[in-house]
Amino acid sequence: MQRAEFYQLAGVILDLAVEAHALLRGATQQEVPGVREDKEQYPNATVTTITIMNAIGEQAMGKPQGTYITIDAPALRSENPPVHEEIAGLLAQKLKLLLQKWHVGPADPVLVVGLGNWEATPDSLGPKVINQFTVTRHLLKYVPQNMPPGTRPVSALAPGVLGTTGIETAEILKGVVEKTRPRVMIAVDALAAGDLQRIGSSIQITDTGISPGSGVGNQRTGINQQTMGIPVIAIGIPTVVHAGVIIYEALSQIQQAFPNVNLQLNQAVAQNLARNVLAPFGGNLTVTPKEVDDLVHNLAWVIGNALNRTLHATLLQAKAAIPLH
Amino acid sequence: MQRAEFYQLAGVILDLAVEAHALLRGATQQEVPGVREDKEQYPNATVTTITIMNAIGEQAMGKPQGTYITIDAPALRSENPPVHEEIAGLLAQKLKLLLQKWHVGPADPVLVVGLGNWEATPDSLGPKVINQFTVTRHLLKYVPQNMPPGTRPVSALAPGVLGTTGIETAEILKGVVEKTRPRVMIAVDALAAGDLQRIGSSIQITDTGISPGSGVGNQRTGINQQTMGIPVIAIGIPTVVHAGVIIYEALSQIQQAFPNVNLQLNQAVAQNLARNVLAPFGGNLTVTPKEVDDLVHNLAWVIGNALNRTLHATLLQAKAAIPLH
Amino acid sequence: MQRAEFYQLAGVILDLAVEAHALLRGATQQEVPGVREDKEQYPNATVTTITIMNAIGEQAMGKPQGTYITIDAPALRSENPPVHEEIAGLLAQKLKLLLQKWHVGPADPVLVVGLGNWEATPDSLGPKVINQFTVTRHLLKYVPQNMPPGTRPVSALAPGVLGTTGIETAEILKGVVEKTRPRVMIAVDALAAGDLQRIGSSIQITDTGISPGSGVGNQRTGINQQTMGIPVIAIGIPTVVHAGVIIYEALSQIQQAFPNVNLQLNQAVAQNLARNVLAPFGGNLTVTPKEVDDLVHNLAWVIGNALNRTLHATLLQAKAAIPLH
Amino acid sequence: MQRAEFYQLAGVILDLAVEAHALLRGATQQEVPGVREDKEQYPNATVTTITIMNAIGEQAMGKPQGTYITIDAPALRSENPPVHEEIAGLLAQKLKLLLQKWHVGPADPVLVVGLGNWEATPDSLGPKVINQFTVTRHLLKYVPQNMPPGTRPVSALAPGVLGTTGIETAEILKGVVEKTRPRVMIAVDALAAGDLQRIGSSIQITDTGISPGSGVGNQRTGINQQTMGIPVIAIGIPTVVHAGVIIYEALSQIQQAFPNVNLQLNQAVAQNLARNVLAPFGGNLTVTPKEVDDLVHNLAWVIGNALNRTLHATLLQAKAAIPLH
Repeated sequence: MQRAEFYQLAGVILDLAVEAHALLRGATQQEVPGVREDKEQYPNATVTTITIMNAIGEQAMGKPQGTYITIDAPALRSENPPVHEEIAGLLAQKLKLLLQKWHVGPADPVLVVGLGNWEATPDSLGPKVINQFTVTRHLLKYVPQNMPPGTRPVSALAPGVLGTTGIETAEILKGVVEKTRPRVMIAVDALAAGDLQRIGSSIQITDTGISPGSGVGNQRTGINQQTMGIPVIAIGIPTVVHAGVIIYEALSQIQQAFPNVNLQLNQAVAQNLARNVLAPFGGNLTVTPKEVDDLVHNLAWVIGNALNRTLHATLLQAKAAIPLH
Repeated sequence: MQRAEFYQLAGVILDLAVEAHALLRGATQQEVPGVREDKEQYPNATVTTITIMNAIGEQAMGKPQGTYITIDAPALRSENPPVHEEIAGLLAQKLKLLLQKWHVGPADPVLVVGLGNWEATPDSLGPKVINQFTVTRHLLKYVPQNMPPGTRPVSALAPGVLGTTGIETAEILKGVVEKTRPRVMIAVDALAAGDLQRIGSSIQITDTGISPGSGVGNQRTGINQQTMGIPVIAIGIPTVVHAGVIIYEALSQIQQAFPNVNLQLNQAVAQNLARNVLAPFGGNLTVTPKEVDDLVHNLAWVIGNALNRTLHATLLQAKAAIPLH
Repeated sequence: MQRAEFYQLAGVILDLAVEAHALLRGATQQEVPGVREDKEQYPNATVTTITIMNAIGEQAMGKPQGTYITIDAPALRSENPPVHEEIAGLLAQKLKLLLQKWHVGPADPVLVVGLGNWEATPDSLGPKVINQFTVTRHLLKYVPQNMPPGTRPVSALAPGVLGTTGIETAEILKGVVEKTRPRVMIAVDALAAGDLQRIGSSIQITDTGISPGSGVGNQRTGINQQTMGIPVIAIGIPTVVHAGVIIYEALSQIQQAFPNVNLQLNQAVAQNLARNVLAPFGGNLTVTPKEVDDLVHNLAWVIGNALNRTLHATLLQAKAAIPLH
Repeated sequence: MQRAEFYQLAGVILDLAVEAHALLRGATQQEVPGVREDKEQYPNATVTTITIMNAIGEQAMGKPQGTYITIDAPALRSENPPVHEEIAGLLAQKLKLLLQKWHVGPADPVLVVGLGNWEATPDSLGPKVINQFTVTRHLLKYVPQNMPPGTRPVSALAPGVLGTTGIETAEILKGVVEKTRPRVMIAVDALAAGDLQRIGSSIQITDTGISPGSGVGNQRTGINQQTMGIPVIAIGIPTVVHAGVIIYEALSQIQQAFPNVNLQLNQAVAQNLARNVLAPFGGNLTVTPKEVDDLVHNLAWVIGNALNRTLHATLLQAKAAIPLH
């Protein structure tokens, strides 16, 4: 059984388009019709841009049409403030690109959403970002005289997760969008990767929003232009790997060790695996490194810094001392 | 200058109707037209019900028409679990009364809202309550077969505060109410009292919702039937006292010490006080006891316990083992 | 390769004696010399007591001589307050047994230690317990007149983890023990299980303390009578499973599917597995369910409740309203 | 009654030497024997150094002999990252001065202690700092090959507060110092000021440690060279003002308004004030601004940044990517 098939059976979703693409291309590196991949090299990072160009690419990738930019920066995982700042700058540059694509002007209102569960460390990236950038919407409303002209109204929300609120996150956000009318939403979420090495070191930015069923907290409804009525840019960083991934990894190692035996998993065997090993807790089993708390702490800072650079160019130029609310 | 006048000048708001009423009645205990006060005695608590009956009472009290029940239970402030449970039972009884008043049926959907700022201890009561009762709305939607018949859909939200989100709390809630259509909202908030002795020991339950400008976090827009479109029951417990209160208190003590001098504050003196002593930080200065973290911890448990008793009678009767989401 | 061998190679440690024992006994249920196992049945729990009686048992089990009581209560994993209280009572009963074994008197001072990392959810059980029971040592020192006669001095500490403090937890605790002279230490820690079903449902109580290398946070130095100079009772609940466990589980399933092929792992294959699949992040990869935050929340309450029943019999009998510090 | 007398009666302690000195000098700006004050001006800060030179100064000031440097930087209170970084640099410069005074070498081991209560926002500054700088002691012990030569061993501890642990903080720290043998301790604490304007804008650095009874959490035992056996440098920032301060402030305003009446507080009046207005909650009433959570968040970053600059010059020069623990 191919990896792709097993993942489907085991409920493994690859949130990163760059991984989904690699999986499709397989060992032979065949082209996937309707999908383009470009690479750029930076001193401390590689940037891969996957473009899903049409319905054929969409079908093949199982992801909506659009742009998926992945910054791979293993140095994010070490305590190296100058590199963290450098990557924040790179992230800001890519965010600006996507905002331009949607023709978002420099003073257009933006709503930043921190998805995930504050109380579960690997899923807390989104809520933690909320405290790391400057919110201005209320200041422009109540003390406009204190704000440099051209300041962008930025608002922020950490809506919580279905298990805590009983409400689909998309329902909450749709309500808030209707009441506050931002021009674009930027949603930050913790992702599940298909490779442990990507935990805390890959950043995906996409103009397609959050797909249903993706993210560590498994959104049931998509958060995207279709459901929100405004463009949704998503920033995601893997903090976990689905348990099914390391199981398939283990099987591949075994197969290599027994080259004369065809261990080709059949449907029944794979199903047994999924049912007997991965079933507890509704199959929602993830693999995380112990130091995930430090990773999340650093990553929240990087994203917050990038959001300030992207959204508050005017404010930063004015070297304004923004009053605390 | 009378206390009431000084409070107005200094921006002191008395969130508890029972205190506002006492202030109006003054030393002479005069009747306030349009307002009724009833008292009940319980082993560990006194319950005072203020009813603002008409527009005249509304004007006098500066609070909307409706019922304001205050449970005074000094024992809440000590570590005494059996008494905490007793007070939770009493709170549940009063909550049921208000739900009946609005003809809310036993299976009607309820949205519980935890107002306030998670990160500022005295203002964190609302958000902390959110984790202390059972949320069922999503379970009834996704695993109805696991839920006893008649289970009430309960959802919960901690929307954050204006300074963090840049969005008026009322805007967020109005959006969520429109999307999820609860029958009634129960809003939990930390209050400001006019007497240090009430911190952590008085619970106010009202069917009038949250008035603009009240609460520790100072809601700018009211959260009530008019703004939400559904009845709003508010549960509030004082965790702070406005700094202006203890200043007036001190002045009264001085006056008593100099009975022959008329220290009668005039407008100018009082304004100087407010401007020179209370002005820093936008006048948002509150007095809190050091152990406010323990108080809030215990109070969140009491309110959560009362909410479970009030909202989940069926569920508790079924002695159901509610599956974790 | 047998499971035990693979676990050793992959760095999997079974913190629960009941699991280590089962592994040793194997499919044939052979007796392990020097080890005794007893079972008791309760309405909502099974209690298994493993006694390592001598050096032979110690060597076989890889755990120090002593008593290891495991309460298995799957109902702990659902939201069922009455059952939680019942299990807390059972835990208290077993704790009292171990205290008696060490001849700890009803007013002897006890230090409760919450091991683990507050910021990493699955490892936060210990620190979270610290807020869930009554600390009295300072009250007896500063306001003895407020405390019923016979109140036990109880102190508490959450010392943090090596990665945050740079100090071995055992060093911190040894220092505090020397300064405060408790009669016994009770250490609470999150454990790693060998079976996902045990996450959040098994409680181990042992009079042997914390072994080096055990616990989610991987203590490097043991915390036990030898290192502390006083008896150490440990309470542990699994919140994770080592990633190596589910890999071996998967291999077993595959082997069953290919009964005619001998997939017997040899040293080289197993080493490759450990090196290529489990190596990232220093091999510290754990599997957790998504809802681990709710589990930890509930378990902290159960342990705190049991500690109050065990340590504060006099205080509870006096129905004392313990003043907040 | 003079302010100094009233403060004593009301239990107001001025943690900042610069305020205690001003109080002593009074309106007439008289010299205080045994005390010297020097001022330096920086672009965004004023630095005042109080030196208590001998026993006479000690007695007058009620503070131990030594150096008290106060950085006054009102810009700390606005969201202005470049200024925050500038002040962090200035703080580092002053810390280096005190370390030199104690002849602490560049590779001598340092223990940083975060005093205060994690759960009470105004008192959480110390514990929050603990996550904001690099801890190296364990890395030098377990992976020395990864560390640049000359890296200083730095450890960190947030010992909690008496009300939570039942143990005097000094007892915990003394134990840890004996076990880990640092060359110097740096203790970070939230302070109480005598002026609301100093909240979040003054930083005191002193080589005299923490005096008994000072700090928001009111240490009962001093944490200083005498009790710890090693030099203790304390960094403190006011986050509250004692309620007695604003009461005296109010009285002064009233007196100004009635110049012909001598309101001179006598002992009895002042005692009544303290007993009737300030007594609840053991007199531990503090005044805080609502946005204290944002202040503490920013201040923790500033102190952490300064600690890295002060303690890890070698590490920063090596531009080392410090591995996460």
